[in-house]
Amino acid sequence: SRSIDLAVIPGDGIGQEVVAEGLKVLSAVLPQDVKLETREYDFGAKRYHATGETLTDADLDSLKRHDAILLGAIGDPSVPSGVLERGFLLKLRFAFDHHVNLRPSKLLPGVATPLAGQPEIDFVVVREGTEGPYTGNGGTIRKGTEHEVATEVSVNTAFGVERVVRDAFARAQARPRKKLTLVHKNNVLTFAGHLWTNVFNKVAEEFPEVTTDYIHVDAATIYLVTDPARFDVIVTDNLFGDIITDLAAAVSGGIGVAASGNINPGREFPSMFEPVHGSAPDIAGQGKADPTATVLSVALLLRHLGYDAEADRIDAAVTADLTERAGKPARATSEIGDALAARVAG
Amino acid sequence: SRSIDLAVIPGDGIGQEVVAEGLKVLSAVLPQDVKLETREYDFGAKRYHATGETLTDADLDSLKRHDAILLGAIGDPSVPSGVLERGFLLKLRFAFDHHVNLRPSKLLPGVATPLAGQPEIDFVVVREGTEGPYTGNGGTIRKGTEHEVATEVSVNTAFGVERVVRDAFARAQARPRKKLTLVHKNNVLTFAGHLWTNVFNKVAEEFPEVTTDYIHVDAATIYLVTDPARFDVIVTDNLFGDIITDLAAAVSGGIGVAASGNINPGREFPSMFEPVHGSAPDIAGQGKADPTATVLSVALLLRHLGYDAEADRIDAAVTADLTERAGKPARATSEIGDALAARVAG
Ligand SMILES: CC(C)[C@H](C(=O)O)[C@@H](O)C(=O)O
Ligand SMILES: CC(C)[C@H](C(=O)O)[C@@H](O)C(=O)O
Repeated sequence: SRSIDLAVIPGDGIGQEVVAEGLKVLSAVLPQDVKLETREYDFGAKRYHATGETLTDADLDSLKRHDAILLGAIGDPSVPSGVLERGFLLKLRFAFDHHVNLRPSKLLPGVATPLAGQPEIDFVVVREGTEGPYTGNGGTIRKGTEHEVATEVSVNTAFGVERVVRDAFARAQARPRKKLTLVHKNNVLTFAGHLWTNVFNKVAEEFPEVTTDYIHVDAATIYLVTDPARFDVIVTDNLFGDIITDLAAAVSGGIGVAASGNINPGREFPSMFEPVHGSAPDIAGQGKADPTATVLSVALLLRHLGYDAEADRIDAAVTADLTERAGKPARATSEIGDALAARVAG
Repeated sequence: SRSIDLAVIPGDGIGQEVVAEGLKVLSAVLPQDVKLETREYDFGAKRYHATGETLTDADLDSLKRHDAILLGAIGDPSVPSGVLERGFLLKLRFAFDHHVNLRPSKLLPGVATPLAGQPEIDFVVVREGTEGPYTGNGGTIRKGTEHEVATEVSVNTAFGVERVVRDAFARAQARPRKKLTLVHKNNVLTFAGHLWTNVFNKVAEEFPEVTTDYIHVDAATIYLVTDPARFDVIVTDNLFGDIITDLAAAVSGGIGVAASGNINPGREFPSMFEPVHGSAPDIAGQGKADPTATVLSVALLLRHLGYDAEADRIDAAVTADLTERAGKPARATSEIGDALAARVAG
């Protein structure tokens, strides 16, 4: 009989609330014969304040044994900026080699977008997750003086770029439009830019059916608001991916419905699934948070583990729910979770 | 009697066409007693193909003697990516210490925006122009092999950050809303992020009337499409500034009306003014390019040289022209220039 052994990290702020709904929908969608085991972890601001720890070696050992990880949100104004981001979120992505950071954007019928004319939006960003300016390389000299110099080093390797580019080509190949766009800034960041461009062009030869193009990251932000329909699959570096996926979320229904997967495709380590939004301390504990992004992250999780039919059911339930919800007054977090759980079970 | 000695760099593609209109409006707006001298330079793709040069020491010596520089656009698909960008545009910004890269965004009444509901947009981005990931620091080892490693180093100095932050505070102080937002990614790029944040907070003490806030660059792209009215003045690093100003241009009427100044506030070197758009080779030579961005760059140029009344006349002419043009069929490049020249002369 089948089973899923899930690590659950509710985290801070609205993380607790949205994860509860994610698990509700997950339980509802799974067939009777699949045994779901969950173990909750207390990472985040509370643990940091209590112990000074963000993520220990023992934690990593324990997390490693699960099939996958579901995360709500990590971050709180009481913790200095960077401590939980670098000490937990990024540490985990790097430790578990989550090199494919997958972020789909789809504007569903009737869903509000800041763009005029309800454009068609249906693309996926494959963001590199373990290199670029996110490595923590760099440093500071003469800190706090008028002669301070601070550097940040973007590290890009043929190995790291090629594996994520190949993953993106495979995803493009599997989609009807079969189009892949490389987003970079190769006219200014020429060292990293040449590496990305050369690897992209080389791997393209293995995928003759995939149409390719290249655009600079600055121009990409223009297209995301003037012609988002031009995108099918985008592959890009860690920092550019961070920036354009927030914009992509904003134009395709908002951060309340943006899901993401931090994926280790070879499954040497468990992959982690999380909404793109943060912990939103301003609305935490009020039942106002939209759990849809977390529920869609659960669908990505199921797809990663091979439960495609169940993932499809969640996607369909969200589409139906959002379409029906359009223009109606906001519902509470648990009401949305209940509605989605009822649909997937049905 | 007064005089302006201007270096003119039409450059590539539509650069030629838009600069001609910029000069037309400049001549029309200047009072009789101001002597305008111009010298044209042939930088760009043609010169590069003919001589292999992009910008020599002799060129810099010659350019240095002018009061200001007006640039159309540089760049052509026949030149490998990066050659003209690094060899001309960035070389000039660095050589002439253009550390304040000024990019105003204002959505004028009736002007088309991709955003629904015609939001209020009126802010200025002060982009640092001589540091960050644009310094060209970094390199490549094992190029072209499967073991290639390419790095890009973002260099940030207290000196460089403080002068641009202080400039931005002064600009915020001079505006009615007096609000300054720092955009960075200080939770991930902690070395540079701490420097920027600390300098920002320190300089803020000198400007008690200015309201300040901080947002991450990814979140900034969301606000630019969901709530652009929240911004008054933004100060940010070279790369983040590049990205968000293209998005800002897109939402506030398009790249056809986005002006910029590469400013050396101390006037040790001439400042350079240019439209944010590129050379657009696909529409070059057809009289289709909108010269408005170049004309608005001329206004920034005049303001920099102390001709405030003339700059105001250009801004007012553009506002009137755009409002009248709204919804009408597109006009030719020279028609728009003629209309603006007539208005400012009037
Ligand atoms: C919180 C932060 C470290 C993170 C990132 O920059 O990757 C977030 O913005 C995201 O996009 O997941
Ligand atoms: C052409 C390129 C070097 C330039 C930049 O990145 O600064 C352009 O995008 C700009 O914004 O002026």
